[in-house]
Amino acid sequence: MLTQDKEQDKTQIDWKPIIKKFIAVLGEKGVVKRREELLTYECDGLTSYRQTPPVAVLPRTTEQVAEVVKICNQYSVPFIARGSGTGLSGGALPSEDSVLIVTSLMRQILKIDLENQRAIVQPGVINSWVTQAVSGAGFYYAPDPSSQIICSIGGNIAENSGGVHCLKYGVTTNHVLGLKLVLPDGSIVDVGGQIPEMPGYDLTGVFVGSEGTLGIATEITLKILKSAESICVLLADFTSVEAAAASVSDIISAGIIPGGMEMMDNVSINAVEDVVATNCYPRDATAILLVEIDGLEVEVAENKQRVAEICLKNGARNITSAADPETRLKLWKGRKAAFAAAGHISPDYYVQDGVIPRTQLPYVLNEIEAISQKYGYQIANVFHAGDGNLHPLILFDNSIPGELEKVEEAGGEILKLCVKVGGSISGEHGIGADKKCYMPDMFSDTDLETMQWVRQVFNPQGLANPGKIFPTPRTCGEAAKATHQQFSGVERF
Amino acid sequence: MLTQDKEQDKTQIDWKPIIKKFIAVLGEKGVVKRREELLTYECDGLTSYRQTPPVAVLPRTTEQVAEVVKICNQYSVPFIARGSGTGLSGGALPSEDSVLIVTSLMRQILKIDLENQRAIVQPGVINSWVTQAVSGAGFYYAPDPSSQIICSIGGNIAENSGGVHCLKYGVTTNHVLGLKLVLPDGSIVDVGGQIPEMPGYDLTGVFVGSEGTLGIATEITLKILKSAESICVLLADFTSVEAAAASVSDIISAGIIPGGMEMMDNVSINAVEDVVATNCYPRDATAILLVEIDGLEVEVAENKQRVAEICLKNGARNITSAADPETRLKLWKGRKAAFAAAGHISPDYYVQDGVIPRTQLPYVLNEIEAISQKYGYQIANVFHAGDGNLHPLILFDNSIPGELEKVEEAGGEILKLCVKVGGSISGEHGIGADKKCYMPDMFSDTDLETMQWVRQVFNPQGLANPGKIFPTPRTCGEAAKATHQQFSGVERF
Repeated sequence: MLTQDKEQDKTQIDWKPIIKKFIAVLGEKGVVKRREELLTYECDGLTSYRQTPPVAVLPRTTEQVAEVVKICNQYSVPFIARGSGTGLSGGALPSEDSVLIVTSLMRQILKIDLENQRAIVQPGVINSWVTQAVSGAGFYYAPDPSSQIICSIGGNIAENSGGVHCLKYGVTTNHVLGLKLVLPDGSIVDVGGQIPEMPGYDLTGVFVGSEGTLGIATEITLKILKSAESICVLLADFTSVEAAAASVSDIISAGIIPGGMEMMDNVSINAVEDVVATNCYPRDATAILLVEIDGLEVEVAENKQRVAEICLKNGARNITSAADPETRLKLWKGRKAAFAAAGHISPDYYVQDGVIPRTQLPYVLNEIEAISQKYGYQIANVFHAGDGNLHPLILFDNSIPGELEKVEEAGGEILKLCVKVGGSISGEHGIGADKKCYMPDMFSDTDLETMQWVRQVFNPQGLANPGKIFPTPRTCGEAAKATHQQFSGVERF
Repeated sequence: MLTQDKEQDKTQIDWKPIIKKFIAVLGEKGVVKRREELLTYECDGLTSYRQTPPVAVLPRTTEQVAEVVKICNQYSVPFIARGSGTGLSGGALPSEDSVLIVTSLMRQILKIDLENQRAIVQPGVINSWVTQAVSGAGFYYAPDPSSQIICSIGGNIAENSGGVHCLKYGVTTNHVLGLKLVLPDGSIVDVGGQIPEMPGYDLTGVFVGSEGTLGIATEITLKILKSAESICVLLADFTSVEAAAASVSDIISAGIIPGGMEMMDNVSINAVEDVVATNCYPRDATAILLVEIDGLEVEVAENKQRVAEICLKNGARNITSAADPETRLKLWKGRKAAFAAAGHISPDYYVQDGVIPRTQLPYVLNEIEAISQKYGYQIANVFHAGDGNLHPLILFDNSIPGELEKVEEAGGEILKLCVKVGGSISGEHGIGADKKCYMPDMFSDTDLETMQWVRQVFNPQGLANPGKIFPTPRTCGEAAKATHQQFSGVERF
């Protein structure tokens, strides 16, 4: 039978001997126990959920992580790994009975092997540092979440993070060769290796995106790529979403795979122009497309021409392009500032993350507009159009009681819409605490149960990040109840 | 505790009632039980191991596969899935107590969705049929094992097959979006989906390459790619392996990712010239490189120039190139015929499959030469140089008693050499029955045990393809004994 997540009687945990043991391993400075210091960790990027953890630890090595996890096992207390805390689905949300294992002192780049194009890093290393470390030699690390100047590689592994350039280069899982892991019982294993294809089961692939529920990655072997010779950004503006969406489809159908292909709707355009004044995005456009093309100079020149022709054929009003870094940055500026701009034009905003087949773009955007009207919230759409990864931003005022719940309901409708058209409830932000109730919309009971059995192999005591990813009856109400009943009553194997 | 593979007392299985049930599900024609017909299935491409199965079944649908598997469960008899039987590691090798589930009647292409670039196929569909089905519209399926005109997609999934074009486009796992699976208890689940990134654990990734030990894929959603506008093949010949290997490294370092980059040594060159007379490969060359470049015409033209310059700088004597399909085919002809040619110049040959970091090529080829001298066998080297995937062909005469054992020992030394330099014991042929004894050279006991636990989740009775991938004491002697002792005595979780 599947064991349930560890649910301690919170009042009964005596933290004193546990903390004493942590201090023996990590020293006084490696253990955070004062409430005011612990407040730093009360939430991640999903700020609508907060919980101060009882204790946080700051290990520096694989062995220290393993020792901490063994102490957790000894006292049967759960633990939650946390990188920079920029996650948007509450994957690193603490619980009142769990130890928070923070990787922010594990920030060494352990090895760079340019010849074989790989780097070995600790999990607390910041995403953009990897590129910085190899850019002098003409290389870079491809996955680039918006938070790349602050988010950690460990967090990227947990959430299988994406970014603007994932259309062409793939998400985090496509760039991880091997992992040293501390499993939830404190044992240390290596999965994958230094070369892409390894025999046996692909446990690296299972671990990437497992949101901390299978253990903690303490050494990560990343692929690094050669920087492109030439990069060009095109901005095309449209008077209809259909025309922009048709351009996206036609570009891909023509065999062009842009480095990135982003769409913004009129609400987003005006938000960013209000806030950062790029003066590049026409305020009356229904949608704009930003298409980045990279490769050899000759290739970029030709593809630039082809993309422009496709956009014009589909009714683009204007095409602007830039090849020099400064102007490229200017064209990207509004897109990069889109979330922040939403925060400026509205007291609060709620970022949704869903995926749809590219061909469903016009239909889904119309339906999102209908949801916007139904609930009475403005919704700004900013998204990775090339891979159909939507990021609707629902603008609202959290100081009005009951609004957050309504907004979450509207967000839920958007997710169900994504599932309905054959898409997914998460593109790159993960499930975490936020979306676990929607997992049954996407997976059958048997599918979820199979995942839970895999989880149990790694995490039989339920100590690693309990209450994340999988629906639980306490938090998910009816939707999850059926699943839970099955788990608690049926022995499948 | 981990359960062991099912080992029946072979004399005790009463096949009559089992076969009767199979016939009830599949009809008389769907059940092969006559010994002379069963001989077809006594081995796969690894012809040095043979075992006639007691019975083979030919289902046509997912439901029929599930019914067959349920019958196997009911009688506790193991089962082994088989596609076209072209595998080179004995992954589909029958055993005397197992049912062989042959997918060769499951040959429907169920759906083609050009707009979203995917196809859904049954497992018995031949690899090259997928490309044929979409090539009219300008698309293709990228993974291209040498056996592509006969091997099945199901077998490709089982072995995570590669091919010449995997350097640029990745192996099978990079081209599978979702799977419908019959698990070893007969239940049907869906993993992955119609879009690349799905939340939850990446069970699709675990299944691809699991060599039939986790269940049987019955519907496979594949990515299809847009065909390149232009393709060019360059042939460069060298008087030293070091010069050819340095060219490979320099091409990759320059940021060029060829569609394929193959190396052949002098023994291979002469073998193919003897047999297929391409008249393109200079017989006195120490090594030749075949580099295929694809993309836009302008891109191909420029990269062709750059590759040629790099090869010349490294001491290439001559460069030939071809852009028209006919001449390209001529340049590839020798490479494609390399295995067959080995069979012509020698009574028998043994294909090894190992991976090394690209930078170790010259060292490893020298060491393989030393192994050749030590054992007294000629070894022809033909390989995917770009990704360091070696295919040494050991030439020998199997009619001389004891030779096969000696050749296997020499092959084993090559594998250990690959592991020593940070590589792998299999690039694309899988572990199967052939290489399981070498798994402990590559993985620690804990690593292997973690894989076994995952296996147990899917395959708790040990009925799905027993005796493959993981070392067993009966067949692997000392190397495996330690692992086995651990499995049988220790409860890890």
